[in-house]
Amino acid sequence: VTTGFSHAARSPAGRTSVADAVAWIDAQVAPLAAEMVALAHAAGRVLAQDAVATAAMPPADQAAIDGFALRGDETVGASAYNPRSFRLAAADGAVLAPGAARLVSAGDPLPVGADAVVALEHVQPGPSGSGEVIDAVAAGHGIEPRGRHVMPGTTLLEAGRRLHPHDIGLLAAAGITRVPVIGRPRVRCFLPTVTSVGSGAPLADANGPLLQALIERDGGDAMELRRIGRDLAAIAQALRAVEADLVIVAGGTGRGADDQAAAALAEAGELAIHRLALHPGETAGLGRTPAGVPVLLLPGAPAACLWAYELLAGRAVRRRAGRNPALPFRRREMTTARKIVSAIGMTEIVPVRCLSEDRIEPVASAAAGIAAAVRPDGFVVISEGSEGVPAGAVVAVHLYATC
Amino acid sequence: VTTGFSHAARSPAGRTSVADAVAWIDAQVAPLAAEMVALAHAAGRVLAQDAVATAAMPPADQAAIDGFALRGDETVGASAYNPRSFRLAAADGAVLAPGAARLVSAGDPLPVGADAVVALEHVQPGPSGSGEVIDAVAAGHGIEPRGRHVMPGTTLLEAGRRLHPHDIGLLAAAGITRVPVIGRPRVRCFLPTVTSVGSGAPLADANGPLLQALIERDGGDAMELRRIGRDLAAIAQALRAVEADLVIVAGGTGRGADDQAAAALAEAGELAIHRLALHPGETAGLGRTPAGVPVLLLPGAPAACLWAYELLAGRAVRRRAGRNPALPFRRREMTTARKIVSAIGMTEIVPVRCLSEDRIEPVASAAAGIAAAVRPDGFVVISEGSEGVPAGAVVAVHLYATC
Repeated sequence: VTTGFSHAARSPAGRTSVADAVAWIDAQVAPLAAEMVALAHAAGRVLAQDAVATAAMPPADQAAIDGFALRGDETVGASAYNPRSFRLAAADGAVLAPGAARLVSAGDPLPVGADAVVALEHVQPGPSGSGEVIDAVAAGHGIEPRGRHVMPGTTLLEAGRRLHPHDIGLLAAAGITRVPVIGRPRVRCFLPTVTSVGSGAPLADANGPLLQALIERDGGDAMELRRIGRDLAAIAQALRAVEADLVIVAGGTGRGADDQAAAALAEAGELAIHRLALHPGETAGLGRTPAGVPVLLLPGAPAACLWAYELLAGRAVRRRAGRNPALPFRRREMTTARKIVSAIGMTEIVPVRCLSEDRIEPVASAAAGIAAAVRPDGFVVISEGSEGVPAGAVVAVHLYATC
Repeated sequence: VTTGFSHAARSPAGRTSVADAVAWIDAQVAPLAAEMVALAHAAGRVLAQDAVATAAMPPADQAAIDGFALRGDETVGASAYNPRSFRLAAADGAVLAPGAARLVSAGDPLPVGADAVVALEHVQPGPSGSGEVIDAVAAGHGIEPRGRHVMPGTTLLEAGRRLHPHDIGLLAAAGITRVPVIGRPRVRCFLPTVTSVGSGAPLADANGPLLQALIERDGGDAMELRRIGRDLAAIAQALRAVEADLVIVAGGTGRGADDQAAAALAEAGELAIHRLALHPGETAGLGRTPAGVPVLLLPGAPAACLWAYELLAGRAVRRRAGRNPALPFRRREMTTARKIVSAIGMTEIVPVRCLSEDRIEPVASAAAGIAAAVRPDGFVVISEGSEGVPAGAVVAVHLYATC
């Protein structure tokens, strides 16, 4: 039976700054190795090497316009007053005979022998399967020559780029079918859970679905979400056995009877940082399993779990996935219509509501629970050195969507 | 053997405006019906009904701070000079006896009988398993009462909201495990393909992977990507047999021999619109299968396929999925450093490159192929009524990422 008194009183002085925790993550958590994936499944992944064109674009001379492919020198002298007659060739012929013309669409490869395309409006029907060209064109007219846009060996996209759907089209057009991308980090989440609840109502598992959605947003694979006992032995056992690219323990980080996650990590592996100057999220921690896998200890209270994930664990997931490690929200400078209060020495998360395109106001403190944290339009991070900002000040707002 | 001459000459006059095509899509393409999904898989989906709390948050009176739960009236008169002694109860007891105190962490449910929490720093160790309280607290101190943040029946999130990962945490904390969301549209893509290529090099299938990535970005399920013959019979057969929420035919929309997709749709179902005042993307079309499924005909050339998807097909996918139908890019007013030229009567897509946070310049025309279209930072849509914009003008830029 644990009854308490084992821990120091809460004081900002004993806490690690968010900046130091971020520096630890950046030093300890590296991108995964590359893996080859089919192009159709590569959107959102991060290129591990430069993508270099293996084929020319276009791959062969092709029609740039809809019209008739023919030999340009056979149109010399053609005009509305002096139409030149061509035999119309079948649409599927690979070789164009002299004196023939073949209907092509923009983007079609030219038949062998053709070197120009006459626009449809410069050809009129002639007798018995013939067409009459009323405009002279030089060789090369109406053509996109092989390699005009891209030659083999050209770097199309650089390593480190997160592939946008449009990029997939470019790579496919360049003949690339598989690409090397940074691996998708496998993240295991352990949820130390209260097994006996005082006044009866069971606690909803807010953190499992929340963490799964967040990890997937950040490019990770939430391969496991497992409730475990909230005692030291259960947590330590989970940490010892784990095989993963990243481990999250959500819960069991509080003080007193609840403070088993940090002790378990210290026993099973290494506890590098515990207790942060972050509100909500004070009881978060960082460390490593015996096998060297980074471990993020997050508080169990939903709002604290959310913010400690966003500022710490999410950064680790994004780094492992090769992504930009910064907060994945649109950031905009906006004016606060009301004073924002913050405790000096603490990094504080303050949910805000948009009043207009340029103005926000703080809503109830993030400590007011996850309902207050997520229904607003975004949030502001007030840094440790600040006691807050006055009304009328410009702050950097992280926006969930467009105001 | 098709040799041509079946179609009208190209002229902006014969084309449907993009605005009219968009109006057709908005009138014809409705959101799918709702389906229930597990909360952990609901991120990114669109709520079909208001999400209403079924449980209170917190579900029971709980500790707001780390400390000792006890009966507030038993602390009357306690101070540093007059400590009150409490028996320390086991951490897992559901009921607190009179005269006892139990260590709790913020967020823990209170044991039955307790009505206040004294902060850790106001309790000091006493003899043989006792603790001495040095601060008097009233009932309710250090407590978050049941339902403080949310009461049962409260609307947490409104119908139509696209669920953010944070929302998942809120719904989970409110005891919700499944949510009604708009169905995920099943999109079938047919790729009419040139079977014989004139000068030998096979055409890369740029459109299949591109469309899959775009459809998934927009909340659809690219359930089928099938190459079919580029002849009328093959396309018509595919359209007749199809079961889907949306059909895309990419290719076979050009003029002359290539113009089989529109004819096939007219024969198999209904061709509502063909040929648009959109560049690239002139040969796009819209209609319905015999079963009433909306069909988008996209050009086969990759850049034209891309832009016709973005302006037309993507809107249909997003509408079916219940999402905001607007282009899914961040939009920002920026100044163009160079003149942007556009043909009057045509909606033109102009890829742009960022020069700074506020300035862009047009890059090679979108007609210069998909390489020119996707390597820049974003694009501008020049409307039909405009011949372009002068240097120094402010334009709305759709950005792929942050400049």
